[in-house]
Amino acid sequence: MISFASDYIAGAHPQVLKRLVQTNLEPLPGYGEDPWCVSAKDKIRAACGCPQAQVELLTGGTQTNQIVISTLLREHEGVVAAKTGHISGHEAGAIEYTGHKVLELPQRDGKLEAEEVDRYLRSFYADENREHMVFPGMVYISHPTEYGTLYGKRELEALSQVCRTHEIPLYLDGARLGYGLMSRAAELTLEDIAALCDVFYIGGTKVGALCGEAVVFPRGGRPAHFTNAMKKRGALLAKGRLLGVQFDALFTDGLYFQLSRHAIDMAEGLKAVLHEKGVEFYLESPTNQQFVILDDRKAEALKSQVAFSFWEKYGPDRTVVRFCTSWSTTAEDLELLRSVL
Amino acid sequence: MISFASDYIAGAHPQVLKRLVQTNLEPLPGYGEDPWCVSAKDKIRAACGCPQAQVELLTGGTQTNQIVISTLLREHEGVVAAKTGHISGHEAGAIEYTGHKVLELPQRDGKLEAEEVDRYLRSFYADENREHMVFPGMVYISHPTEYGTLYGKRELEALSQVCRTHEIPLYLDGARLGYGLMSRAAELTLEDIAALCDVFYIGGTKVGALCGEAVVFPRGGRPAHFTNAMKKRGALLAKGRLLGVQFDALFTDGLYFQLSRHAIDMAEGLKAVLHEKGVEFYLESPTNQQFVILDDRKAEALKSQVAFSFWEKYGPDRTVVRFCTSWSTTAEDLELLRSVL
Amino acid sequence: MISFASDYIAGAHPQVLKRLVQTNLEPLPGYGEDPWCVSAKDKIRAACGCPQAQVELLTGGTQTNQIVISTLLREHEGVVAAKTGHISGHEAGAIEYTGHKVLELPQRDGKLEAEEVDRYLRSFYADENREHMVFPGMVYISHPTEYGTLYGKRELEALSQVCRTHEIPLYLDGARLGYGLMSRAAELTLEDIAALCDVFYIGGTKVGALCGEAVVFPRGGRPAHFTNAMKKRGALLAKGRLLGVQFDALFTDGLYFQLSRHAIDMAEGLKAVLHEKGVEFYLESPTNQQFVILDDRKAEALKSQVAFSFWEKYGPDRTVVRFCTSWSTTAEDLELLRSVL
Amino acid sequence: MISFASDYIAGAHPQVLKRLVQTNLEPLPGYGEDPWCVSAKDKIRAACGCPQAQVELLTGGTQTNQIVISTLLREHEGVVAAKTGHISGHEAGAIEYTGHKVLELPQRDGKLEAEEVDRYLRSFYADENREHMVFPGMVYISHPTEYGTLYGKRELEALSQVCRTHEIPLYLDGARLGYGLMSRAAELTLEDIAALCDVFYIGGTKVGALCGEAVVFPRGGRPAHFTNAMKKRGALLAKGRLLGVQFDALFTDGLYFQLSRHAIDMAEGLKAVLHEKGVEFYLESPTNQQFVILDDRKAEALKSQVAFSFWEKYGPDRTVVRFCTSWSTTAEDLELLRSVL
Repeated sequence: MISFASDYIAGAHPQVLKRLVQTNLEPLPGYGEDPWCVSAKDKIRAACGCPQAQVELLTGGTQTNQIVISTLLREHEGVVAAKTGHISGHEAGAIEYTGHKVLELPQRDGKLEAEEVDRYLRSFYADENREHMVFPGMVYISHPTEYGTLYGKRELEALSQVCRTHEIPLYLDGARLGYGLMSRAAELTLEDIAALCDVFYIGGTKVGALCGEAVVFPRGGRPAHFTNAMKKRGALLAKGRLLGVQFDALFTDGLYFQLSRHAIDMAEGLKAVLHEKGVEFYLESPTNQQFVILDDRKAEALKSQVAFSFWEKYGPDRTVVRFCTSWSTTAEDLELLRSVL
Repeated sequence: MISFASDYIAGAHPQVLKRLVQTNLEPLPGYGEDPWCVSAKDKIRAACGCPQAQVELLTGGTQTNQIVISTLLREHEGVVAAKTGHISGHEAGAIEYTGHKVLELPQRDGKLEAEEVDRYLRSFYADENREHMVFPGMVYISHPTEYGTLYGKRELEALSQVCRTHEIPLYLDGARLGYGLMSRAAELTLEDIAALCDVFYIGGTKVGALCGEAVVFPRGGRPAHFTNAMKKRGALLAKGRLLGVQFDALFTDGLYFQLSRHAIDMAEGLKAVLHEKGVEFYLESPTNQQFVILDDRKAEALKSQVAFSFWEKYGPDRTVVRFCTSWSTTAEDLELLRSVL
Repeated sequence: MISFASDYIAGAHPQVLKRLVQTNLEPLPGYGEDPWCVSAKDKIRAACGCPQAQVELLTGGTQTNQIVISTLLREHEGVVAAKTGHISGHEAGAIEYTGHKVLELPQRDGKLEAEEVDRYLRSFYADENREHMVFPGMVYISHPTEYGTLYGKRELEALSQVCRTHEIPLYLDGARLGYGLMSRAAELTLEDIAALCDVFYIGGTKVGALCGEAVVFPRGGRPAHFTNAMKKRGALLAKGRLLGVQFDALFTDGLYFQLSRHAIDMAEGLKAVLHEKGVEFYLESPTNQQFVILDDRKAEALKSQVAFSFWEKYGPDRTVVRFCTSWSTTAEDLELLRSVL
Repeated sequence: MISFASDYIAGAHPQVLKRLVQTNLEPLPGYGEDPWCVSAKDKIRAACGCPQAQVELLTGGTQTNQIVISTLLREHEGVVAAKTGHISGHEAGAIEYTGHKVLELPQRDGKLEAEEVDRYLRSFYADENREHMVFPGMVYISHPTEYGTLYGKRELEALSQVCRTHEIPLYLDGARLGYGLMSRAAELTLEDIAALCDVFYIGGTKVGALCGEAVVFPRGGRPAHFTNAMKKRGALLAKGRLLGVQFDALFTDGLYFQLSRHAIDMAEGLKAVLHEKGVEFYLESPTNQQFVILDDRKAEALKSQVAFSFWEKYGPDRTVVRFCTSWSTTAEDLELLRSVL
């Protein structure tokens, strides 16, 4: 069966796996102190154009959000996010588990708007009872968003400006960052993101790795004792090499960008097939996730031939479903989809 | 340079890695719902002789301890452990991070004694002020212990009996379980452990996998919404296959036991070399970790040729250091060690 | 200066204080095991018409919300509340501090609507990804609400029905419960509330006591080891008598209801004065809190003669402010207000 | 029945209660911003000889320990305490509930020894794996200790020196501070304590108040947003005046010291009675708590006439019990005890 169910249906990009095989028997120190971690971090710094950046390698997205947010926030602070942000609704309360509130704001196409954030922050600081409230201590965005949409350059600049004015960090969740950077509609480069955000992560799990996310603090500011914080949250791998080798491979010869571009090419092909077959779009995105509306009967019938994923009910008889491409999607997959739609 | 620094110096056992390569492009569902996870769990159930067991796959040891302990304990409970237990001193407070106390008891060779635990529990329940205290809600042991020692069959039976009398679960941390099972001094089989403990984990990270620990609830009793609990703690891998494929490989054709036996054979060889060279033992264990005492000068000199690990200072001029073998240790490593000691 | 700043501007009702003085030197056991606590709980059970009710005495409102919610919720659950609920915005993240999310829903006049809650719960259970989300494990409402408004009988019945259908408890925050019960618009009696809610608290701090809130589980179901949970959160008073004596006094000869009725009489007088003086209402409530809109200049001038409290900005030059009455408000206070408005 | 069960058997010292009555109807701002809180803090600063001190008023001892410790510790730190420290065993895990470990050290007569602490800290910093461990971030002592014993001046100076050398704060739990200061064996004044500790609290609950503890940061350093931290933990009283008025009364005309001296006089009388009657001491302390060993039969018989408290079993047929005096103990109480022993 072909699958467009998610962007984590396959293992690692073959190039990444090959490097795991090649380095497998090297005796290396544990806990991220091996040379592959060092080298991966160097290459990431270079790709971001930030020689001074601090880089940390973690295993998964929710884990990364949890650690970054809970270590950067101070005792009295929460994190501002879109109502549809991944941390707001789809991480099982991982942020609240660390004792911090997610301060949810309205969104548009999955995005936070700088004006909305600014209004919220101003109103918070105008409130005389604010000592009884959760202080907004960080702004969280995802890029691409949970709907596959992208921030434009001006939009991110405006958010960055608001955060700087109010002196709180801007954190970008890049679980699918590669697909955002390689989108045909992309306005933002990795360097732009490094310049405009205070911390962000480069997603590996959904972009070519078996697992792994690289957190970047482009101008420093990593919380002290970060290793301890990772350990305390069960996030420190004994074999840190698993992350180091993979990110080293992904950032060698531009592999991360190439495989992301492939996923985008496949997404454009996917959209063409869906349009050709007259499928109604709920949200057509410039990245690797496409949201369409299917009759429940149609969806049911299709299920036996193509894997896709449930998004939400859309009236009594229809459902929004998601089709994803990834680095592992092939032209044959698209052909097969065309033949069964 | 040769390394006896730890049992996580190499990647995965070649057989495990091969299976990751073979299955790499299969499109599979995420979050542990793939057939390899199902198959791995079946094989683990079979190996434990527990067809009814519930099995969960996690990524690392501290993470596993944190999730198992914090989901099994009730609000008012803490976990009883040896002062030298991994959760007591070497997990950066991961248990306390979840709001629960580690109730530390004295140990002997890294082991908790049933009598000591019983005395503690009786004394707790005799205390009229116990509602102001942390209730002992679970007993945690490691096998092999942090010192490489093993529980005898009678010892584990006695602990199990104490726990049943007081109606609290017995949890066994098996980060190095394979090395305990294959030790020449082993009295306990996997079936014994499954019969005597209420929950335990079979360590993968230190026994042939890149990462991964398999939690076993031999007679059921897994906390409800365990997936949610994993997600909430950042422990749910999108590509659960990474764990499923590895454990499936480890429990195919007895690989887990074979590679463990190899590590034990190497450990016996290591002990012979150390004795031959007149190295003083701090603790000679029946498993893969050996603790010896080196003059600081000797240790310093040796460092450039052999990797080992610091354990603790031993008077002003000497240090306890640890030498480990693992599935990846070779006879050549031992020869090289002999030549430089 | 006269004060309408809040309903906690004075100490205890003289009758309550008198009882503290009378009982002061009695040697009593600590931690809530004294006869006054026993007697207070009996009287509260009687007032609620619930001879089987479990009653617990706590010190303040946020503390009460924190303990009730965090002990009743299970690991994977959060609490559903109105966006304007006290726990949502004005308790400094006390619920999240315990690791649980507040699931915020839209409100109308500070109230949750049964239909809205039902829709939310149905949609949650229809979501195939719900294991990655925070489960709704309780519904929180306040009565009177933060805006002084009241649930009608049908409204509470409908909410109660929704909760029972979905098998989650309905919790009512009664910080100002007396003022709700004695409102001239009241449709709900204490017995009704006990019949329709699974747990609620009768506010003392704002209704005649120096401090103290009485949590009622009308049909039992108090979490086990509640005393331990209180202690663990720093909420167990050594001199529990402080709460027992006060609640005993409040529930002797209907004092709680009498003093509440007085506050309502004063509130009606307050509304008359405000109307008479042409002050614009933002929200005219049937209880003891009135929200009016003042020009900033007017507000500034008034401040030196009357205390009231800031609520929120209302356009560039105006502000919503709150005037409260309580058991301690006097007819003279109203006269003085009339003279300076 | 006469009671020596604890030092919280009575309400407030009559002088304290009188002030509550006198100020009861004053309309005052809430949340600790009233003039009585201001005045109480001024008087405490004066009594400590620390005009720059920051003072905060809280409700109970466990609450105070929880807030002070959890706001002063950083993410990666725990608190060092004696195995018998109140936070170690008798606060239901309140510190761990905030995510921090209590690092328990051996004690002598309930006291931590400077050398022991120093050895522990040095050994911690010598450990190469310390990033995987809980950092010692504070030293907690109680004075008087849980056994009624006192630190001598040299002992506290030595502890203070160790803390300064290692740059971690020294925190003194003064739940019964008055009884320590007025002990006939006292070597330490309030000024000494303020000079040698970084933060401490002056206990009110057990020393004349209905409730209340005053935290003193003698040279500043109170964590930012302390009010928010209190609110978040359910510890901020709406009627902060309850604490302000009481501490103002306690620190007016030396009442706190006078009533403490009275308790000490009664304790000396108590010891004389116990000796006279040939009761065996388990620990005879210089403060208000005395620990004696009773035959179980004797204890059982005595119970109907005198209240005292269970401490621990002492062999099969005997029990250690505690007799306490307090500001409310009278000479008649002692006479009655003599007559029934």
